[in-house]
Amino acid sequence: MSMSPATAIARNLIRCPSVTPKEGGALSALETLLKDAGFRVDRVVFQDDDTPDVENLFASVGSGAPHFVFAGHTDVVPAGSEADWTHGPFEGEVDSGVLYGRGAVDMKGGIASFAAAALEFVDQNGTDFGGTISFLITGDEEGPAINGTVKLLEWADKQGHRFDACIVGEPTNPAALGDAIKVGRRGSLSGIVTVTGVQGHAAYPHLADNPIPGLTNLMAALNDLKLDEGNERFQPSNLEIVTVDVGNTAFNVIPARAEFRFNIRYNDAWTLDSLKAKILETLETVNLGSLKMNIEFKRDASESFLTKDETLIEALSKAVSEETGRTPELSTGGGTSDARFIKNYCPVVEFGLVGQTMHKVDECVAVEDLDRLAAIYHRFLVSYFSK
Amino acid sequence: MSMSPATAIARNLIRCPSVTPKEGGALSALETLLKDAGFRVDRVVFQDDDTPDVENLFASVGSGAPHFVFAGHTDVVPAGSEADWTHGPFEGEVDSGVLYGRGAVDMKGGIASFAAAALEFVDQNGTDFGGTISFLITGDEEGPAINGTVKLLEWADKQGHRFDACIVGEPTNPAALGDAIKVGRRGSLSGIVTVTGVQGHAAYPHLADNPIPGLTNLMAALNDLKLDEGNERFQPSNLEIVTVDVGNTAFNVIPARAEFRFNIRYNDAWTLDSLKAKILETLETVNLGSLKMNIEFKRDASESFLTKDETLIEALSKAVSEETGRTPELSTGGGTSDARFIKNYCPVVEFGLVGQTMHKVDECVAVEDLDRLAAIYHRFLVSYFSK
Repeated sequence: MSMSPATAIARNLIRCPSVTPKEGGALSALETLLKDAGFRVDRVVFQDDDTPDVENLFASVGSGAPHFVFAGHTDVVPAGSEADWTHGPFEGEVDSGVLYGRGAVDMKGGIASFAAAALEFVDQNGTDFGGTISFLITGDEEGPAINGTVKLLEWADKQGHRFDACIVGEPTNPAALGDAIKVGRRGSLSGIVTVTGVQGHAAYPHLADNPIPGLTNLMAALNDLKLDEGNERFQPSNLEIVTVDVGNTAFNVIPARAEFRFNIRYNDAWTLDSLKAKILETLETVNLGSLKMNIEFKRDASESFLTKDETLIEALSKAVSEETGRTPELSTGGGTSDARFIKNYCPVVEFGLVGQTMHKVDECVAVEDLDRLAAIYHRFLVSYFSK
Repeated sequence: MSMSPATAIARNLIRCPSVTPKEGGALSALETLLKDAGFRVDRVVFQDDDTPDVENLFASVGSGAPHFVFAGHTDVVPAGSEADWTHGPFEGEVDSGVLYGRGAVDMKGGIASFAAAALEFVDQNGTDFGGTISFLITGDEEGPAINGTVKLLEWADKQGHRFDACIVGEPTNPAALGDAIKVGRRGSLSGIVTVTGVQGHAAYPHLADNPIPGLTNLMAALNDLKLDEGNERFQPSNLEIVTVDVGNTAFNVIPARAEFRFNIRYNDAWTLDSLKAKILETLETVNLGSLKMNIEFKRDASESFLTKDETLIEALSKAVSEETGRTPELSTGGGTSDARFIKNYCPVVEFGLVGQTMHKVDECVAVEDLDRLAAIYHRFLVSYFSK
């Protein structure tokens, strides 16, 4: 039985053991494929303190605007216990119409589908199709994410690339291909609240000042805080206290210091600044007496965003509907992704395979899904460049 | 300048470096002194799993009832940085009427004063004074307290000793000799409250069940709990949450489990059982939804007690007043002491030196205080055995 182009490319990529931060041959395979199709390919290595060097790939075909970029990563999470896999995690075996292997859906399969679509598009239209198609592929999305997308975007910008639209090929569909396009992401804000009192002996509480009752009241204030009700595109913003720690091992000692840490996933009702102000205002409603409070907001916060480029969203939705018969939900749920970096350069949406087996043993994808995703991406390119 | 008997004994004891669990020669010095005065002396070593062997001393003079026992310990806490001491911690130097050294007030000085008093009493009355005087001296009061008073009491009971009254010679006076006699102690109860939920990703809180909001509400319920108002003899019972711990290092993870630990110092409005019931009842008012709560009460709890032996209390109070001109407060404040074990055998009160320098650098005692304490103990013995 012959193998479809998307399946063949996905299998070749799965056979490269590119566990973060190893390139594992995956970017080289992609480079060869794209060069043969007329793409200009750059391999760029980024370095930083205390993180491994990471290889990245940028490839373009065509010229001028509109400039569409497909973003993704060839690195994968570890296979875990290989003995638990029914098919080798780096074999790329096809069994009963299903391709098995680490990265099958997250996201070598997505890259393969897009590569198949782009190659077909260039094959049909030549390289002078009235615009540019690029691949922005990183090797540390599953790692520290320091030497990947952020730096590759800066690099491309310095090279003069100006993007007009982007699709990230992460697995966005909860159950079936066509379920959901992600059109935005919630922001994330973390913080550490510390309360300081006076240490002492539990038998002499009047000589001490226990920080824990004050800490309890601050936690209760944040637990009770309703940030918003959500809206048409976003679920309600949510705060979770993720840890509380004192570390006192003695039952007869009143501690001097207690802290808790929280994480907020917030929607576009808030900016980072308005949210920080709300948290401070809420904490300041608590009467701490003589206790001292300190709050430290973590620096890795991200803004929420909602992509409003109707041309991009409609072209992709239409392609999904035509191939799958489903009307994709325009979702903003879930965790963060590299889209949070790309949205600073151009409108970005996310659509890829079904995520159910990602990061699990026996990660796999139906060959039919790979081909339908390639068809969706191809329809999108035809539609996008026809305008 | 000649040295008073109490000062000479205290100095000899201080010169024995009996840092817990070392005997350091202190019990031997006491043994020699008491044997010379006609006491029968037993040295008893107790052992247990995971604790050092500890030497103890039991000595008696006279016979029959009433049987009065003086309880104390010759072990001391470490000197800390010896360079910070103005007089060597194990030298027993007297400077300007003050005796310096580790244990000067806690409680080699107390033992020395009692020994001086008992020796004077026996010297005046012989050994046939119509009763028994005993020393119950341990070597690990400042340590795990496993191989000391508890076992020595059991041992004495097996030997047929039946005590009628006890004074513990711990430093009970906050500021001046005669301030306070301790006539009882609060009880102590510790516990660990654990709340278990379901771990998950902070971006998908509907798939997790964060135990921290439930834990917060349980903590708030205990912080808000007023156990009682106290009474004539006792301050109000008091609960302190001494630690809260989750140990989650990731801001994007909702933890499965959270715990806090508390300690209660409680008065005679409560028994251990009624207090446990009150804590359970209070925790159970909190709606935890699907979270699971567990409470573990620690096994080292102690009952509160109040000694009501008016003969003992009045004899000691009168001796204190006559020597110092002060009317001692009958106090139940402060931490726990070995009196909590002794009260199961006989009425017990506590009276010793001024505690201000205990456990500190330059621990010291005025020679005048040692002599006045010896005089108080002597007046007490005369009064007690005259009845």
